[in-house]
Amino acid sequence: GGLTHFDQGGQAHMVDVGDKNSTHRIAVAAGKIRMQAATFEIIQSGNAKKGDVIGIARIAAIMAAKRTSDLIPLCHPLALTRVTVDFQLVPENHSVECQAQVETYGKTGVEMEALTAVQVGLLTIYDMCKAVDRGMVMSDIRVLEKHGGKSGDWTAMID
Amino acid sequence: GGLTHFDQGGQAHMVDVGDKNSTHRIAVAAGKIRMQAATFEIIQSGNAKKGDVIGIARIAAIMAAKRTSDLIPLCHPLALTRVTVDFQLVPENHSVECQAQVETYGKTGVEMEALTAVQVGLLTIYDMCKAVDRGMVMSDIRVLEKHGGKSGDWTAMID
Amino acid sequence: GGLTHFDQGGQAHMVDVGDKNSTHRIAVAAGKIRMQAATFEIIQSGNAKKGDVIGIARIAAIMAAKRTSDLIPLCHPLALTRVTVDFQLVPENHSVECQAQVETYGKTGVEMEALTAVQVGLLTIYDMCKAVDRGMVMSDIRVLEKHGGKSGDWTAMID
Amino acid sequence: GGLTHFDQGGQAHMVDVGDKNSTHRIAVAAGKIRMQAATFEIIQSGNAKKGDVIGIARIAAIMAAKRTSDLIPLCHPLALTRVTVDFQLVPENHSVECQAQVETYGKTGVEMEALTAVQVGLLTIYDMCKAVDRGMVMSDIRVLEKHGGKSGDWTAMID
Amino acid sequence: GGLTHFDQGGQAHMVDVGDKNSTHRIAVAAGKIRMQAATFEIIQSGNAKKGDVIGIARIAAIMAAKRTSDLIPLCHPLALTRVTVDFQLVPENHSVECQAQVETYGKTGVEMEALTAVQVGLLTIYDMCKAVDRGMVMSDIRVLEKHGGKSGDWTAMID
Amino acid sequence: GGLTHFDQGGQAHMVDVGDKNSTHRIAVAAGKIRMQAATFEIIQSGNAKKGDVIGIARIAAIMAAKRTSDLIPLCHPLALTRVTVDFQLVPENHSVECQAQVETYGKTGVEMEALTAVQVGLLTIYDMCKAVDRGMVMSDIRVLEKHGGKSGDWTAMID
Repeated sequence: GGLTHFDQGGQAHMVDVGDKNSTHRIAVAAGKIRMQAATFEIIQSGNAKKGDVIGIARIAAIMAAKRTSDLIPLCHPLALTRVTVDFQLVPENHSVECQAQVETYGKTGVEMEALTAVQVGLLTIYDMCKAVDRGMVMSDIRVLEKHGGKSGDWTAMID
Repeated sequence: GGLTHFDQGGQAHMVDVGDKNSTHRIAVAAGKIRMQAATFEIIQSGNAKKGDVIGIARIAAIMAAKRTSDLIPLCHPLALTRVTVDFQLVPENHSVECQAQVETYGKTGVEMEALTAVQVGLLTIYDMCKAVDRGMVMSDIRVLEKHGGKSGDWTAMID
Repeated sequence: GGLTHFDQGGQAHMVDVGDKNSTHRIAVAAGKIRMQAATFEIIQSGNAKKGDVIGIARIAAIMAAKRTSDLIPLCHPLALTRVTVDFQLVPENHSVECQAQVETYGKTGVEMEALTAVQVGLLTIYDMCKAVDRGMVMSDIRVLEKHGGKSGDWTAMID
Repeated sequence: GGLTHFDQGGQAHMVDVGDKNSTHRIAVAAGKIRMQAATFEIIQSGNAKKGDVIGIARIAAIMAAKRTSDLIPLCHPLALTRVTVDFQLVPENHSVECQAQVETYGKTGVEMEALTAVQVGLLTIYDMCKAVDRGMVMSDIRVLEKHGGKSGDWTAMID
Repeated sequence: GGLTHFDQGGQAHMVDVGDKNSTHRIAVAAGKIRMQAATFEIIQSGNAKKGDVIGIARIAAIMAAKRTSDLIPLCHPLALTRVTVDFQLVPENHSVECQAQVETYGKTGVEMEALTAVQVGLLTIYDMCKAVDRGMVMSDIRVLEKHGGKSGDWTAMID
Repeated sequence: GGLTHFDQGGQAHMVDVGDKNSTHRIAVAAGKIRMQAATFEIIQSGNAKKGDVIGIARIAAIMAAKRTSDLIPLCHPLALTRVTVDFQLVPENHSVECQAQVETYGKTGVEMEALTAVQVGLLTIYDMCKAVDRGMVMSDIRVLEKHGGKSGDWTAMID
């Protein structure tokens, strides 16, 4: 089958979801940013008391989830009912992992909202640390699982 | 040194760039999205004539660059003077690489704008292909080089 | 009768639609842009392979439909369920016609969303061609038909 | 010559204006909306005291000028220094004419900002009157004149 | 009890409202701006015929209500069904009072939307009069009453 | 003199600042929110370790400063060069004071940006604590001082 975002003539459209059921939909996405050891330590210490990089990245991620349909051209606007964003500090490889869960009761899924939250969460970490470490790399950004809707449950196979 | 985005009390602020010189600033960022072989072929064929996934992702990326300071909390608004976004199809590993170059004449750099363009470009590819391949993964998103400003030229060391 | 967007004292308000039924609502709007023959040929040739003016205008139009309630002061925010935008090249008078169809299941109609899509679609064509033809003119922008809601079906009488 | 919004490979980009001079730039655009005689009279009477359709359309138009680079994909963000929007009631053909003048000191022109102001001004009139007259038609939307920049002065030839 | 906007680990989240009922929700907020006698007279005279400060502030307030979830980090997006904004001129203390009523049928209340409307309504008055009276002060901005939802009716105790 | 935001005919416009000098401009605004003693204690304890109401309000305030010209109809867009937002906990009257300083090098002042930051900072505190204290009141929101531009320095007379 072809891509649903194009009609039979190959032109892009915002696909018709009018006939879909309004169901409880959940998506979980994740990703990480790797950095130098010194940068990692700054984030780690700041997290405890001041210079709260993670706290700011979380707010940016939550707000970005709400802007998804403004950013992604063919994405439907959705009234999100829940957004949570967690960060995990991983000392072994000086990386910060971000995981976002987004929920709605609507006619289409929220994978894009979860991915957008992760991307902007990681970007905000980059922004706040770039003065000391311009070479940080973001990777492994993906959907981990989704629930609800006609296609039902799905879980990523992590290699 | 600590992070410039926090003051001495550890509180976040949008850092003072008023005394910086308005110079020509350039940033190049890149990243990629890996997918199944079948998905890759759909993009590849669409690129030629219709179902133009890449063309739409490019527009989304350019528009996102202009929204950067809306998304990243402590990012300065900047009047961008140039944005180019290129995609490279890499058949060997079924991935699409995205590279964005952003320029301005201003008091602060445009790394965040280039990264945001790449992120939203890749996200748009994910959105348009997710109905056939939900397991796509975005990675290696980073700044490749920057020019201009007090810190001058910088190029990423790619391992 | 007076205008519903004003209360009895003549003050503007966002009119109460809380008691209206959530029904399937459809609106179709159209408009066109006239240009020089040479400009028309550039668009026509670009459409086939590269320099895809029409493809970019379509994306801008779809995205603009989602921004309607941000732009039009008294317009209700709506969760659109479908947006399609078609362009027709009309060689006889060197014009491009744009037609947008917008749908929702909601308490108020989507005429404004369809019109906004058409306007921004035409504006984007103007933007991309203005360097070669500043005198292009947009006209005949109107609602062609609407369905759903208390007032039911309506079709424009085209003279 | 081809369209500057595409590179040599036919791909869209936000064109480089970095080398252009920052000069005083002015653009004037206009357009009109035709309506039934009864609708025209409602606007006319409202203008004097309450139910101020024109006043609201003017505010929407001014605000829209500031959103232009958010709406038009390849449009540069610009710090506008002046926006004026005038409406003329034309009893002979039951139409309202809108004219917008936008100015900046920058590296690129403001034709798109002036056109966007006119479009959203007319759309707002449509929105406020659509309950009594759904068949209103917007037309003759064009740039009337521009000044500043390398291409200098330009005035539309009105037939 | 703690604050619902934080999880048990103290991290911010957009709280889960998925299980809440979609009910008719109403919020009324108010506030005022005090100014010099001369400024008050300018507003008062303008209100009648031209220089309509209040009319413009009303439009800004209504539009701001629709932007609330963009501005307030943990606020849920909501499809508002009604927004009214009234201003009262109070000659005794040269102040303008603003009152906003917002309604929706949704899973969470609209207090923030009503407060945001009031704040931006007052800010717009400040903006338009600041050239003649920079010392204006906004105060007593609060929710007056709310209805609907699990917590039911609530009315502020005004001292 | 009349209000500069209206032309001689009494119509609103975005006033011409093209001829003004680009100078260093600074504005400081402040305001406060009063609450119950119990609410105050929750904020106070959260500030130290988790449930960081103040940290989130600061981010919202900084981001709002960047959105000012989107919210206030006749406000010029400006490239801010610095935004700082401080909160002071005042145990005597269970209130939190917010003070924002905004700077730019531009053709017009930043009072509106500083006031918008304060308003949204206080609104965010309201949002996060409203589940435990709906009766909080925001007041004394004003400009404290401004510097730069033709009118030079100005300091509020606090009674």
